[in-house]
Amino acid sequence: MAVLPDLSKRLLLGRALRSDRLGETLLPKRIALPVFASDMLSSVAYATQEVLVLLAIGGLAYLYLLPWLALAVVLLLLVVVASYRQLVRAYPTGGGDYEVASKNIGRTAGLTVASALLVDYVLTVAVSVSSGVDNIISAFPGLDPHRVVLAVLFVLLLTSLNLRGLKESGAAFATPTYAFIVLVLALVGTGLLRTAFGSRPVAESAHYSIAPEVSHLSGFALVFFVLRAFSSGCTALTGVEAIANGVPAFKKPKIENARKTLLMMATLSITMFGGITALAVLSKVHYVDPLRACDLRGFDCKTDVQRTVIAQVGSAVFGENVLYYLLLAFAAAILILAANTAFNGFPLLGSVLAQDRFLPRQLHTRGDRLVFSNGILVLAGFAILLIVSFDASVTRLIQLYILGVFCSFTLGQTGMVRHWNRTIPLETDPAVRRTMRTSRIINAIGAACTGTVLVIVLVTKFLAGAWIVVVAMPVIFLLMRKINSHYESVSRELEPDPDEEVTLPARTHAMVLVSKIHKPTLRALNYARAVRPSTLEAVTVSVDPDETHALQTEWDRRGIPVPLKVLDSPFREITAPVVRYVRSVRRSSPRDVVAVYIPEYVVGHWWEQLLHNQSALRLKTRLLFTPGVMVISVPWQLRSSEELEARVIEAHKARVKAAIAAGVIAPPTRYPGEQPLVDAPADVPTLKSDA
Amino acid sequence: MAVLPDLSKRLLLGRALRSDRLGETLLPKRIALPVFASDMLSSVAYATQEVLVLLAIGGLAYLYLLPWLALAVVLLLLVVVASYRQLVRAYPTGGGDYEVASKNIGRTAGLTVASALLVDYVLTVAVSVSSGVDNIISAFPGLDPHRVVLAVLFVLLLTSLNLRGLKESGAAFATPTYAFIVLVLALVGTGLLRTAFGSRPVAESAHYSIAPEVSHLSGFALVFFVLRAFSSGCTALTGVEAIANGVPAFKKPKIENARKTLLMMATLSITMFGGITALAVLSKVHYVDPLRACDLRGFDCKTDVQRTVIAQVGSAVFGENVLYYLLLAFAAAILILAANTAFNGFPLLGSVLAQDRFLPRQLHTRGDRLVFSNGILVLAGFAILLIVSFDASVTRLIQLYILGVFCSFTLGQTGMVRHWNRTIPLETDPAVRRTMRTSRIINAIGAACTGTVLVIVLVTKFLAGAWIVVVAMPVIFLLMRKINSHYESVSRELEPDPDEEVTLPARTHAMVLVSKIHKPTLRALNYARAVRPSTLEAVTVSVDPDETHALQTEWDRRGIPVPLKVLDSPFREITAPVVRYVRSVRRSSPRDVVAVYIPEYVVGHWWEQLLHNQSALRLKTRLLFTPGVMVISVPWQLRSSEELEARVIEAHKARVKAAIAAGVIAPPTRYPGEQPLVDAPADVPTLKSDA
Repeated sequence: MAVLPDLSKRLLLGRALRSDRLGETLLPKRIALPVFASDMLSSVAYATQEVLVLLAIGGLAYLYLLPWLALAVVLLLLVVVASYRQLVRAYPTGGGDYEVASKNIGRTAGLTVASALLVDYVLTVAVSVSSGVDNIISAFPGLDPHRVVLAVLFVLLLTSLNLRGLKESGAAFATPTYAFIVLVLALVGTGLLRTAFGSRPVAESAHYSIAPEVSHLSGFALVFFVLRAFSSGCTALTGVEAIANGVPAFKKPKIENARKTLLMMATLSITMFGGITALAVLSKVHYVDPLRACDLRGFDCKTDVQRTVIAQVGSAVFGENVLYYLLLAFAAAILILAANTAFNGFPLLGSVLAQDRFLPRQLHTRGDRLVFSNGILVLAGFAILLIVSFDASVTRLIQLYILGVFCSFTLGQTGMVRHWNRTIPLETDPAVRRTMRTSRIINAIGAACTGTVLVIVLVTKFLAGAWIVVVAMPVIFLLMRKINSHYESVSRELEPDPDEEVTLPARTHAMVLVSKIHKPTLRALNYARAVRPSTLEAVTVSVDPDETHALQTEWDRRGIPVPLKVLDSPFREITAPVVRYVRSVRRSSPRDVVAVYIPEYVVGHWWEQLLHNQSALRLKTRLLFTPGVMVISVPWQLRSSEELEARVIEAHKARVKAAIAAGVIAPPTRYPGEQPLVDAPADVPTLKSDA
Repeated sequence: MAVLPDLSKRLLLGRALRSDRLGETLLPKRIALPVFASDMLSSVAYATQEVLVLLAIGGLAYLYLLPWLALAVVLLLLVVVASYRQLVRAYPTGGGDYEVASKNIGRTAGLTVASALLVDYVLTVAVSVSSGVDNIISAFPGLDPHRVVLAVLFVLLLTSLNLRGLKESGAAFATPTYAFIVLVLALVGTGLLRTAFGSRPVAESAHYSIAPEVSHLSGFALVFFVLRAFSSGCTALTGVEAIANGVPAFKKPKIENARKTLLMMATLSITMFGGITALAVLSKVHYVDPLRACDLRGFDCKTDVQRTVIAQVGSAVFGENVLYYLLLAFAAAILILAANTAFNGFPLLGSVLAQDRFLPRQLHTRGDRLVFSNGILVLAGFAILLIVSFDASVTRLIQLYILGVFCSFTLGQTGMVRHWNRTIPLETDPAVRRTMRTSRIINAIGAACTGTVLVIVLVTKFLAGAWIVVVAMPVIFLLMRKINSHYESVSRELEPDPDEEVTLPARTHAMVLVSKIHKPTLRALNYARAVRPSTLEAVTVSVDPDETHALQTEWDRRGIPVPLKVLDSPFREITAPVVRYVRSVRRSSPRDVVAVYIPEYVVGHWWEQLLHNQSALRLKTRLLFTPGVMVISVPWQLRSSEELEARVIEAHKARVKAAIAAGVIAPPTRYPGEQPLVDAPADVPTLKSDA
């Protein structure tokens, strides 16, 4: 009955893509930048804000730290980007940190990276979409009560877009990303020029004071406080790895294009993050955790909603004109599309893991639009779960974020150092060796820095929510190990000996199950007889003696040339007596095979299914567990099923015709006796001859 | 995979009963009375109360009507019981009003009765259990917030008891019913004696006044008011029909026993209802709809819960001693067990309707304990739905009640009149004719009275909730008609011609579906070759050209003596290309049959199922819709499946052994080659020889 959902799926997803069109979905740089960079660029919209939230715990006293923390983040970003440029060149296959850690450190490290990335992709979706909704609410504060619903709707929208396929995604995402870049650069330029010309922008929250939760920090407490704020700033780094995981999606030359795109992305990211932070300092934006909005003195926390930092800066620089609303619109757009990085990365990683047999095989199956549909759906499910659990609050979700990212950063860069250690001695060209030595130094610095940040994040955010990730990662890790060992053991069991002897069963004992004499039974008897088995009998289970007697009488009257055996059923079951009898036949002649014919009639509607006993299905399932048996369904198609089948076939033909007309696929091979699918039979190639 | 639920079902339900033990579950009168009379007797616990609730709408002014309304109810009850005594004699097969109306008025009348009874059985459960919980809450007012949960738990308890089988139910229900009868008779006796000796009992609510919702009624309004109260009193009649529907469950002589039990039940019911009403009048019980408890002046409606009428009378007569608590305990017990009448009646009626093809066939399948398990589950489901929807409020549920009962009363008695009209002229013995004429008069009076009450109930309760039933009944009616026409049309389609020509298919074209070369594939190829079909080929769908090429190479290397055909799949699907190819083969030779072999491997755990693609199942389903095809599953059992199968077989053997040891079943016939099930092989009969 999987045919009806198939039809509606088709309507939702559009035409299916032919698999040899996969090449056409490769991305040029100008499209790859918005597709892969939206995550990193969009974090500009909340990274400054989340540092402010944490500094504001100390009231106004520590806000002076903001520029210095931003500087630290920018330096870290430069180190990480430099490291990834080495990685892209050495491992251009899109395995990213997973592949690097697996190959150079070992399977456990690789799986750790995989668990970390899977968790972080989910968080990317949750955080980005929530932040996007925040910016929409900054423009339309009346939407505040519908925060969670809006966020969930956007995740569903992204899911639908991504199920349609990569290329269409890229095209759809280019405009908002470029518009956001232009608007932020214009914002920063205008703001700095206004300041230079003496008309410094002033944020709406500049005159608010903040009631501190802690004060007079010193020693360890101060260090902890600063590091915690720095951790939140590190969200600006998320998304660097997207390009390393996406190299195969680039147009040729893949490596060069990926490296250039990475550099371009980093330059833009630093400029925008630095610029917005500078404007936030200049315009004196005061922003606190929305849960403690009442600590913001002068702000009406009962009725008002804090606008995001980017909204406050935008309103201060542009005024509330059309530019301001465009800024918010494109901030929201790029944030929601940033989640798209995860919709590209998660299914791809899931597919790699499924191919390596660490995740269920279904994640490696491409859907009609050549995307990994199941991965997309899993990602969307978990992201919605997080959004609903954390009320779409960026400040709460961000506590879970980046732990995974820095975990994979660290393992990936460590793996790269090992990679160079291994490959440098094998290289003979001194110039190349020099380059490789430089790469090793860069990766070593990267590993040291990201490892340090990983510890900082773990320590400062553990109690604030990161513990959830600390629990989830090992669970996913162990699950993947378990799945892998299952697949391995099944595969070992199914592996035939290289030259396995082919011994045919000596004889075939056929039995046709009979409950009453109707057309399906007669057809099953005919088919069974046509095959000419060694022995053939009809078998019925006696549940009601009267019915059995009537059956026997009718059997004799019709003179059916097959003996009818009656099985006793003290418990009025069907399955157990049949299985017992089949086993007894099999035991009497172990070298033979037992063929059980089950007459079935098929109906066309789900409600018709409800009206007919499911005992055939239950019996078939049990018989499949019995060795030396083959189970033969002989269907009788009722008229309602024929109508359904005709509809399914017509829909399929229409789809194929449309695909041929659109030039998406070539006309399929035509089988002997088949009607031509399209009206130009000259186009139709003849049947391939195989074997 | 239906085997594991089967095991747990077994644990819950106890040992399965052999079908020839059905005779042993017949009921003697002393057990039949509690089983079938609990519904009617238990309504004593709320009938008086619900009349009081309606009279109290007029404040204290109309309470004087109570004795007169009770008298009217008693007279009606006498008429109905007399009518049913005629029905039991004429139709002792347990079809009750359904059978009478069907045979004498027509199919539409029969189905109307059936719809009415189905609805009313559900309401019997909901009302009785809710009232039972009310009495428990009267004893322990602290339970008031858990009213709905308690009611649902009791329905679940009843469901479990009934799934265990009829006889055990009867035995479990005898004690509470008899105890309730004795306690109520003692209550009435004590109360009347105390009044006679001048120490009249006084209810706790005797001194409360009631704020009237209406006052100074006259003319039509007064008539409506009185009839509405009378309608509620008629709930005392529910359950009369239970015996008429249960005649086959009586020990022989069935008819005489059923008639005597009916008379006994009526006598008890009238005595108890009359007695409690008398005591309510004497002790001046004031009781209002719990939703307007604050109209009860002097009662603290914020914190207190009104105790049921029977609790108030009991406390006034006995005082709050052990007798009082026993009275409430057994009132609750008989009410909850009254729901059991429906658990006997509903599945039986459902099974009759399923046999007549008006309801899904599954309702006619007896479960392991020889009860109609599916009917029991459906009843429980709808009763829980009603209880939850109406907050387990008797006063609200009672508005939906008895409409169905009186609908079937009226049609049943009308049918009886027609029955006598038809049969009297055929009778030759004058004495018998006289008896039959008397019966006709009784049934005519019954039909007139119940018809009048039906109209009264419909008019007075329509807006108060009865409209739900007025909607539900035609829906059920039409559903049954639709189901019937479906079964009829399927049956016509499947009916073979009386001497249908047996034409065997000319040839068998076998194809083995191959995805990769592993043991299941090799086994399927072997089995297919062993059958020696006219043509045999292996078929694979090319989703990935590299994989297909690898398969072809391996195929050639192994020298498998079967040609391998590669099907093109532009959309990366498996199902559509295979179906297309099968259809083309079939079209080339329409008189032949196509045998499609599908290699499958079976796993033992549900989570293992998740890890393996379900494409085989989807393909099989689609192929069943293709004419001229048989679908052959060739299973390969993985070790985990063998463990599961071994557990299932051991459990089955243990069950059979236990049943043999308990003398429940005779040792089953032993098949050749089978190990003896029990250690005394001398007992085991030899295999029956059939055909």
